[in-house]
Amino acid sequence: MPNTIRSTPREDGYRMPGEFEPHAGTWMLWPTRTDTWRLGAKPAQDAFAEVAEAIAEFEPVTIGVISCQYEHVRSRMPAAVRVVELSYNDAWMRDIGPTFVVNGQGGVRGIDWGFNAWGGLHGGLYFPWDLDMLVKQKVLEIERMDRYDLQHFILEGGAVHVDGEGTLLTTSQCLLHKNRNPHLTKRQMEKLLRDHLNITKIIWLPQGLHSDETDGHIDEVAAFVKPGEVVMSWTDDPDDPQYAVLGRAYEMLSRERDARGRRLEIHRLHLPDRLIITDEEARRIDTAHHSYYRGAGTVFAATYVNFYICNGGVIIPAFGDPRDAEALRTLRGLFKDRRVVQINTREIALGGGNIHCITQQQPRGW
Amino acid sequence: MPNTIRSTPREDGYRMPGEFEPHAGTWMLWPTRTDTWRLGAKPAQDAFAEVAEAIAEFEPVTIGVISCQYEHVRSRMPAAVRVVELSYNDAWMRDIGPTFVVNGQGGVRGIDWGFNAWGGLHGGLYFPWDLDMLVKQKVLEIERMDRYDLQHFILEGGAVHVDGEGTLLTTSQCLLHKNRNPHLTKRQMEKLLRDHLNITKIIWLPQGLHSDETDGHIDEVAAFVKPGEVVMSWTDDPDDPQYAVLGRAYEMLSRERDARGRRLEIHRLHLPDRLIITDEEARRIDTAHHSYYRGAGTVFAATYVNFYICNGGVIIPAFGDPRDAEALRTLRGLFKDRRVVQINTREIALGGGNIHCITQQQPRGW
Repeated sequence: MPNTIRSTPREDGYRMPGEFEPHAGTWMLWPTRTDTWRLGAKPAQDAFAEVAEAIAEFEPVTIGVISCQYEHVRSRMPAAVRVVELSYNDAWMRDIGPTFVVNGQGGVRGIDWGFNAWGGLHGGLYFPWDLDMLVKQKVLEIERMDRYDLQHFILEGGAVHVDGEGTLLTTSQCLLHKNRNPHLTKRQMEKLLRDHLNITKIIWLPQGLHSDETDGHIDEVAAFVKPGEVVMSWTDDPDDPQYAVLGRAYEMLSRERDARGRRLEIHRLHLPDRLIITDEEARRIDTAHHSYYRGAGTVFAATYVNFYICNGGVIIPAFGDPRDAEALRTLRGLFKDRRVVQINTREIALGGGNIHCITQQQPRGW
Repeated sequence: MPNTIRSTPREDGYRMPGEFEPHAGTWMLWPTRTDTWRLGAKPAQDAFAEVAEAIAEFEPVTIGVISCQYEHVRSRMPAAVRVVELSYNDAWMRDIGPTFVVNGQGGVRGIDWGFNAWGGLHGGLYFPWDLDMLVKQKVLEIERMDRYDLQHFILEGGAVHVDGEGTLLTTSQCLLHKNRNPHLTKRQMEKLLRDHLNITKIIWLPQGLHSDETDGHIDEVAAFVKPGEVVMSWTDDPDDPQYAVLGRAYEMLSRERDARGRRLEIHRLHLPDRLIITDEEARRIDTAHHSYYRGAGTVFAATYVNFYICNGGVIIPAFGDPRDAEALRTLRGLFKDRRVVQINTREIALGGGNIHCITQQQPRGW
């Protein structure tokens, strides 16, 4: 269903690879919620399509789409993008898609974590999230892959980053939040992460970015460039509420050693201005009682570290901000062997995430 | 989308193999229409599930299911059956699924015929059929297969049978019906069939069975056991309205030669009693203005030739009829190298078809 495995990836010799390791392809979903995405989700759809097409230059892309948008998506995407029917509540494939693990001998399996829309009935971003909960399993069925059932552990893909060599980055704010896994102790969670992602070292940063509606996902704070090397969000402005958060994160990362005992090389990427929903933008977002408030003046965290690494490429955000060019330059310097493509993602950021949040890598078995 | 090919299978060296040739697997859909299937489709679901499980003993099975039934189907089917989300208007995969063609060198592609619910606005069985029209393409996307676009030619899979060696069986009643392809002459249709299924000889029987709501599909009349050998529906009762139809079909088949110049060896399978919807059965079928009438007393054709051949097996219908045992014996005799499994399919027959109508083979590339 697909074949559900009772052991753990660690026991079976599987591990979660780093995002920078070779992919079989990328999974995405098609945005349609009119209470998340303004103007009937049309501007967001354009941005998602641009991201999908950019990735498709580097590796196969599959987009899951609800039935009523299938023809539209199929007709607008190039043949290189596979379009499959899939139901979901919103389009954040990073958080609702499976985490894939590999055994280095051709084996690829999926982990089916629990999901509660980033907080369930106590801080979740919409209601219900019943379709999101089935996305991991449906993806694994399409790929005929075996599945580890971790439904009792609420975990979004954006809440963890790994280096593929035993190190995991996360934030206490999110993982230990009482609206996620109040039934699990930190120690139990660590065991689940170790056993399922096959890691040996967990680095807990205390907090994610302010104004991050996910309760502080790590993928807005930092990302691995490769094992031993991290790039993180940064600000020089002591009046910015992110200043203290990021300063503390930098300090902790500087003191840490990874699973292999290395000190981390840390690069900093200055934040763009925070993102504020304009009157014009807010006017065309539908109201829904149980959904996150997106009225005019709502502030969203924005950061360049929410990029996506694919085979030979890195797809990075732009915001129409003076810092865009600096971010592009820095990331080109860090990813010398990849082509760095920058896309204006304001319309994605207005929904509360960015390129990393809407993608999920499927690693290659070999 | 998937990659749409402008040439024809014949030009590209592809042909439609016989059903008895090796399969990669079987595609099915999950019945849910309450105006086709009584009691909320629950008895039909049991019968479909039994067919799927029987086939899964021989080869991989994929069932497409609408979103709201996904969890139910996934939880009741064994892990060996793949379940994928797919929208459709009704569950006849033979007629709404793609026809696969192979090139003998590993290549498998799909033909995306047009579909109008067996007659469109003039005799079609329900309205609308918009989701059915996308099933072929969606299946091909999932399988990452290239597609021949034949949307301008309305053709149901159950309207043709091939021997894989150049011969095609069909009926004039269905293919030349004015509610299918009034814009095409018989000659144009023959060219399309030749070019896309890569056949050289078409045998046109005049008619299908009486009370067949598909306007006379061949798959209720006859089927290939293997090249040169056909099994056909039969009745000894001159008062049965099928008597004249089948007598004439037998006569024509006896006179014909196939694409290789062989005379056909013809076996006869006596029909069971015709099937009549009872008061009790009719009471729990929902009314829908545009749907085929299924009131008490409605008669359906029933035949044992609507079986399905899979790798090492043949799945054949039973109706709780005295002829069931004879059919099993005959088919065991004809398929000596396969295991013949008989399933009571009255609940499928009440919907207007049988095992062949609800299955679609995906041939192996090699």
